[in-house]
This record gives sequence, structure tokens and C-alpha cells, in this order.
Amino acid sequence: MNSKGEAGLPAGESGSWALIDLQRIRVVMVETSLAANIGAAARAMKTMGVGKLYLVNPGEAPDEPTATARASGAQDILEAAWVTDSLDAALAGTTLVLGTSARSRNLPWPMLEPERMGAEIARYATHRNDDIALVFGRERSGLSNEELARCHFHVQIPANPDYSSLNIAAAVQVLCYELRRAALAGTDATEPAVELARPEDMTGFLTHLEEMLVDIGFADPNNQRQLMLKLRRYFMRSQPEPTELNILRGIVSQAQKQARR
Amino acid sequence: MNSKGEAGLPAGESGSWALIDLQRIRVVMVETSLAANIGAAARAMKTMGVGKLYLVNPGEAPDEPTATARASGAQDILEAAWVTDSLDAALAGTTLVLGTSARSRNLPWPMLEPERMGAEIARYATHRNDDIALVFGRERSGLSNEELARCHFHVQIPANPDYSSLNIAAAVQVLCYELRRAALAGTDATEPAVELARPEDMTGFLTHLEEMLVDIGFADPNNQRQLMLKLRRYFMRSQPEPTELNILRGIVSQAQKQARR
Repeated sequence: MNSKGEAGLPAGESGSWALIDLQRIRVVMVETSLAANIGAAARAMKTMGVGKLYLVNPGEAPDEPTATARASGAQDILEAAWVTDSLDAALAGTTLVLGTSARSRNLPWPMLEPERMGAEIARYATHRNDDIALVFGRERSGLSNEELARCHFHVQIPANPDYSSLNIAAAVQVLCYELRRAALAGTDATEPAVELARPEDMTGFLTHLEEMLVDIGFADPNNQRQLMLKLRRYFMRSQPEPTELNILRGIVSQAQKQARR
Repeated sequence: MNSKGEAGLPAGESGSWALIDLQRIRVVMVETSLAANIGAAARAMKTMGVGKLYLVNPGEAPDEPTATARASGAQDILEAAWVTDSLDAALAGTTLVLGTSARSRNLPWPMLEPERMGAEIARYATHRNDDIALVFGRERSGLSNEELARCHFHVQIPANPDYSSLNIAAAVQVLCYELRRAALAGTDATEPAVELARPEDMTGFLTHLEEMLVDIGFADPNNQRQLMLKLRRYFMRSQPEPTELNILRGIVSQAQKQARR
């Protein structure tokens, strides 16, 4: 259950693996001006377990100090980055290409929201083992229509229409996050069981609490139905764990002991 | 159909508005070291239409040139940022507080994935008009246990277990993205109304409880940190309503009075 896949994903209940192998996702950055953004994108990728970075004609080299600083612990992704001189070279060997687009262009293309993108990639990855490319454009001008036309789908992050300009590394973060979600959805990442106090212990506690409230003079023994109903509702809803109920019970005992001195 | 709401959200099909007013979400950054990260967070917020930035004891002021540079077109959010000297001050007026946490701590807290966070906030916002706080910790060390204990929920972005350290502005981007998604999705407001006690009243209650536990001889005043952390976690998670908190406070007062006789 706790063994990890190559992409740091937990194995599913049935021993099956996530359908998306995040190591097969290429993040392709086209003519990125600033090395700092390349470094930040590498960090974003690594936090989500996405493996391969491709740089098409970067404005600054990925070994610039600004890239290293922003990459933080993702230096390995920077060092392994493929630098190419054309989008074609970066896409060689991929069979599914998705391009990010800030707004709808003149030519309408099949447009996916990020969550749909994750589902689409998962569906595709079920049948194919080729790399999948996620292409990001220039900081200011994005991808050209020519480049967008190389993509099977366009992906658009829903944004504030008054200011939709995400930083490029922030866009990489959001899309890699959705990819990781889609990868995890293919597994049975069952939540750890929460242990709740047993019903009979809850009843015991509430009876004890009621006694104590009379002893300390908070509740009128002849007229406490409404009060106890409210407290019962509250404590039941709060779903205490066994250790928490023990503490509450201990407090009640001690308060009662003080009152009975 | 294309008219825009205050938060830049499209009106729904039926002319109804999104239930989450993104302008009521406070992004609270605690002791952020670098102004650049504050600027980048402001940009992330604005792209998603989230309005209010609160800075608790920032290491560098939000008008540093590095902040301005990274904020890009979100200068207005930087300029309107509230700078406070305590988390309490930043939370005043909020009734729902969510804290970001990179990993599970010693004391487990109700933990939401980002999408669930969006749903939870939508459900809450259906019935309440108070501000909602999303609290982000320091770049290196995150939020302290003390600060995390002020939150109703913790939010964790699912990340690569081998390298889970998102840049803070990248984390702001992902969570604001999920908030925007939730706002766009709307909800069916079928869940019952919830009114939660105010954070300052919770703090008052917990302080009073601590005093009482010493007075009745339940807690050792020199060694009650773990106990109080457990109780704090329990009572925060239980999300008492104002009337419930009044009853709890009344019980604490009365038990204390008995012990001090």
C-alpha cells in the first residue's frame, strides 16, 4: 500500500498503477525570456512529480544563477532540461500535444479547462505509452497561431477577464497540479481511517457531564432538558476521538470532585 | 450572459450570481520573508479575482521594487494590502479560517484537498457574509502549530512526497484557482445554515478553559502545552455555534467559581 511508483504515486488498492505516468509528460517552454521563470517552472514541475523539461530557444540559459535560485530543490530538473532550437525537435516522439492559451484566438480550437485536460490525458495515457507534451508560450505573447496549430487541444486556465495574465511558472504549477490530481484519481488513495469514540462511551460521558453540571450549580436538575439537548447535539456533532473523549471525561470528573469537596 | 459580477464572474444562466464572493476571501501571508513572493502572490490573486491581501509582519515591505516587479499588473492589490502585527488582527472579522499546511503534523487536523476546500467555502458562503481567511505560512517553516491551531481546517495541496515544497506564490495560485473554480461552479444551497463562533470568542474560551483546568487541578500549569494543543484541536474542529460556545463558556465559569470557593 505504501510503496511508491516512479512518479511518487501510491499504488492502488488492487496493485494497479496510476494511468498517467507523470514522467512521460513533457513541459515544453517556448522562447522563455527569463531564466528565473524557467527555474520557477522546474520547481513547480517537481512538486507535482512531473519529470521532463524542454526549452525551445530560451532567452537565457537554464544554468543562469537566477534559474538555480528559483528552482530551489528542483536543480535536477534544470540540469536534465533538453534545450532545442525548434518546437518540432521538442515535440519529436510525442503523440499528444496540448498548448496553453490565455484567450480564445481567431481560429477556435478544441479548448479544455485544466481539469478536463487531466481527464483527457488520463484517457489517452490508458492506451498509449508515448510522451505527452504540454506547451507553454512566451511570457508576453504566448504561443503563435502557427504553434497553437501544432496542438491537438488548447488548454485555458479560467481567469479573471479583467486581468488574466498568469505568470508562466504559475501556469505550469496549476496545470501540473491538475495532472497530478488526474494521476492520483486513477488510484485508490483511501483516506486513513478516523477512529471515533464508541457510542456507549459518548453516552457515559454525557450522563457524567449532566451530573457534573448539577453538582457545580450550572444546571437546574428539574429543568435541564433543553440544555442537555443542546450539549448532546454539540458533542455528538463534534465526533470526538477516543483520546479526546478521555480528556473531556477527565475534566468532568475533576470539576465534579472540586464541587463535591 | 456576458455581464460581469464584481469579482469578474459571469452571471449564471438563470441570472443568479456565484455564491462565493471572491472579494470576501482574505489571503493572509504570515511573516513572508521576501517582497518578491508577496508581489507574485498579489498577481496570482488578481488573475483569479481574489481581492484582499493581508500581511502579518512581512520581512520586507510590499512597496519594495521586487514586489512591484513580480506583481506585474496587480499593483492595486499590493497597494491595498493590510499590514498587521499579529495574526489575530488579520483574522478579525472573519468567521472561517483555513490554514495551508505542507505536511501532516503531529496533531492531525481536519484536512481538505484544494477542491474540497473550494466546496467547503462555497457551502459556507451560501449562508454567511463574513470574510473568509486563507492563511499562508513562512517560506521555509510554514505556519507554527500555534497558528495552525487557530484554523478550522487545514488545506494541503497534493504534492510529490519526495519534494513537496511549492513556492508560496505558487501555492496561492493553486488555491485561488480552486476558489475561482468553486465560484464559477456555484452550488446547490441545500445544506443547512451554519453560523460559527467568531475566532476571538474561540480564543477567549480556550484561554478561559486553560485557566479553569489549572484552578480545578486538572492541568499542571508548567506542563500543559500538549494538553491544550489537543483540546484546541478538538474544539476548533467541533466548530461550535455562538450559542453553543456561550454554554461552554458558562460551564467553564461555573466550574472555576466552584474551584475558587
